[in-house]
Amino acid sequence: MTEQITIIGVGLIGGSFALALKQAGADVRFVGYGRHEDNLIRAVERGIVDTYSTDLADAVGGSDLVLVAAPVGANAVLFEQLASVVSPNCVITDAGSVKQSVIKAARQYLGSLENFVPAHPIAGTEHSGVEAGFASLYQGKRLILTPIPETSKEAQAKVVSLWQMTGALVETMTPERHDKVFAATSHLPHLLAFTLVETLFRMEQKEELLRYASGGFSDFTRIASSDPVMWKDICLHNRDSILDAISSLEYGLSALTAAIEQGDDVAIEHMFRVAKQTRDEKILSKVNVE
Amino acid sequence: MTEQITIIGVGLIGGSFALALKQAGADVRFVGYGRHEDNLIRAVERGIVDTYSTDLADAVGGSDLVLVAAPVGANAVLFEQLASVVSPNCVITDAGSVKQSVIKAARQYLGSLENFVPAHPIAGTEHSGVEAGFASLYQGKRLILTPIPETSKEAQAKVVSLWQMTGALVETMTPERHDKVFAATSHLPHLLAFTLVETLFRMEQKEELLRYASGGFSDFTRIASSDPVMWKDICLHNRDSILDAISSLEYGLSALTAAIEQGDDVAIEHMFRVAKQTRDEKILSKVNVE
Repeated sequence: MTEQITIIGVGLIGGSFALALKQAGADVRFVGYGRHEDNLIRAVERGIVDTYSTDLADAVGGSDLVLVAAPVGANAVLFEQLASVVSPNCVITDAGSVKQSVIKAARQYLGSLENFVPAHPIAGTEHSGVEAGFASLYQGKRLILTPIPETSKEAQAKVVSLWQMTGALVETMTPERHDKVFAATSHLPHLLAFTLVETLFRMEQKEELLRYASGGFSDFTRIASSDPVMWKDICLHNRDSILDAISSLEYGLSALTAAIEQGDDVAIEHMFRVAKQTRDEKILSKVNVE
Repeated sequence: MTEQITIIGVGLIGGSFALALKQAGADVRFVGYGRHEDNLIRAVERGIVDTYSTDLADAVGGSDLVLVAAPVGANAVLFEQLASVVSPNCVITDAGSVKQSVIKAARQYLGSLENFVPAHPIAGTEHSGVEAGFASLYQGKRLILTPIPETSKEAQAKVVSLWQMTGALVETMTPERHDKVFAATSHLPHLLAFTLVETLFRMEQKEELLRYASGGFSDFTRIASSDPVMWKDICLHNRDSILDAISSLEYGLSALTAAIEQGDDVAIEHMFRVAKQTRDEKILSKVNVE
């Protein structure tokens, strides 16, 4: 029997989810929901969803599953609205980059959490919006489930099987650990990239400066082209872990500054060697292997 | 008539220079010089140089031009040794990422600066060493000349024409401006990448953390795999401009931290928007155009 899935937010993450399932041959009818009708029309044109509605009750009516793929700041309002319109058996899952705050919002607004499955696909590009989605985004990438005790096995199994169809590798983690790990490995690099570009913007003769900010600089700051609203929300919703991560980086930057000021060649070289060795052995090899 | 060029340091920069000129059909005999004979043997095997010597007088004897492509920390000693062994008409040029300190060392040790041409190719990869060089490295990349009043027109013209043969686009800049511009657009991103990876290395449960540091993190930290000795030297030799750049970034990071602490969504989003817009409009387009 054809299932119906509602995609809330037909951008990079939600759009790629639908496209991947379609490409995998899933027998699913996709309904799009969002704030901007032109995006929804474009999502139909691109074959991301089969139909759409700008009315939430209409968009989720008859759906077996709802994927919330909006910036995490929108979750509380969406959950509150969803609670009164979804059918009792409808599974609700999300794709938010922060998990504790999403779970907190779900507890507060969704009522029963039996059908709520918090998840986070570790995939993305610096592009966003309805044009950005593509079917192979999740191929070979991780999908992190952060289960909560209330979730039913059936709901979780349904979400796992859909993500596996997209090509993702499903893993589980506690919400607390998730938020710490991705504060360090994802959120911190994004904030640094934003801050670095904004720093150049503040400098004198910035037009000339930016002429030379190509090549390595352009690669390094690719993620500074990410969606400002999404990342503002992540900052506010993973506040404590992000502040810890920034503070830890600032400690390293202060140590480096002191070493440069003191001309401490041994300390500088040691720090760079630790970094190079860590990346060459632990990070590069990971990517090659997986 | 066949010219003779001595390459001091047959790694990524020096090796690619020789390979590019050979590919362009330059009538040049290349002589390699370095501290490690096995690298020099390998450079001959790879066709980078035609011959080599571990004796500097021997390596530069009869050469029309010497390219100093060693970490900038080695320049002072090399210039001092070169001064007593090069022929009076031999052009000396360098490829250092810092220019004021190289010029200072040249003034102090080279004696006459008539044949000294300070230069910096804006090209590289995170790889280093004799295996890393390749003929197309400089194709379409900038070569920044930072002329000094003493340099003869003939010496400068010779260096310019060689770099043009490698495919590089030659520009000029004052040494002071060069050091400021590249502190911000190259040195700072490298130091941030090193610091970010070293920060993860310091964190608890780092093995698990590093498992998730793939994808975007891996791209972002590619330059943390760069040569620690080269970058230690850059830190010490472009000290003031680098400290200014770090300080400017720390200002941005403090502002972001404060905004996160205060839950100031407007300030956070504004900062990210400035960064995204700057990168999308000024940086990405640069790379696409050139």
